[in-house]
Amino acid sequence: MRYINFEDTGDAISDEVFMKEALKEAHIALEQDEVPIGAVIVSKNRIIGRGHNLTERLNDVTAHAEMQAFTAAANYVGGKYLHDCTLYVTIEPCVMCAGAAYWTQISRIVFGARDEKRGFSVFGSQLLHPKTTVISGILAEESATLITSFFRNKRAQ
Amino acid sequence: MRYINFEDTGDAISDEVFMKEALKEAHIALEQDEVPIGAVIVSKNRIIGRGHNLTERLNDVTAHAEMQAFTAAANYVGGKYLHDCTLYVTIEPCVMCAGAAYWTQISRIVFGARDEKRGFSVFGSQLLHPKTTVISGILAEESATLITSFFRNKRAQ
Repeated sequence: MRYINFEDTGDAISDEVFMKEALKEAHIALEQDEVPIGAVIVSKNRIIGRGHNLTERLNDVTAHAEMQAFTAAANYVGGKYLHDCTLYVTIEPCVMCAGAAYWTQISRIVFGARDEKRGFSVFGSQLLHPKTTVISGILAEESATLITSFFRNKRAQ
Repeated sequence: MRYINFEDTGDAISDEVFMKEALKEAHIALEQDEVPIGAVIVSKNRIIGRGHNLTERLNDVTAHAEMQAFTAAANYVGGKYLHDCTLYVTIEPCVMCAGAAYWTQISRIVFGARDEKRGFSVFGSQLLHPKTTVISGILAEESATLITSFFRNKRAQ
């Protein structure tokens, strides 16, 4: 796995465009009182899978945004592997989602804000496939603010 | 996470009974030409979730035996958490499934044979929830033989 900082890449503009789509998914989650995390999967500049967190509504810990986007994208391509695809997700994938990303052999993961508790990088970059490149920090502040204000409101209730 | 060897536990008989149920699931996968791995989730000596690998049929890397058993068990209990439950799975859970197990806070994981490539323990026991106890080696040989003969046959085709 290679790890590239936002500043090192020339893909910032298109990455922001797609991260905004992931943020739209996060807002849909928020409207449903779910932890506001969203994801899209892109192949050749086309969104082939979308997802937002639905763990509360479905009573199912596996219903993370990324997992649903993986399933949708695999359905679109008609195969398990997501070579030449990019996952955009507002928050750093957790161990489960990183483990799923490994199996897809996805080419790139672009995430917004870090998850310093359960983000995969806490446990080592080898959780991902060696072919997967990771870019972090795209619209990180907007992504993080959504989450922190969600939990602040929850605590105030 | 505590790690207990088969010899250290007094639960061997009931663990074998439920592992045989997981093996039945693995055999169902085998009949469908899927990688033969099966799982059941048990609460108070009752099976509340079952699953077998369906990644090929569903074209979906997330369709591991454990993931389907988690979803089924959560549906049964009407909640996300699987406290006081045991996951029985024929092969050591991968990173994805260990990450899902973390979110369920499941009490025990009992597995058959180790997966020395992508088994969670390759990457460290902290992938699991600290409340989760792991027991390995229950019907390990039968579980491993199913897998190795499956891949031997695949290579011969």
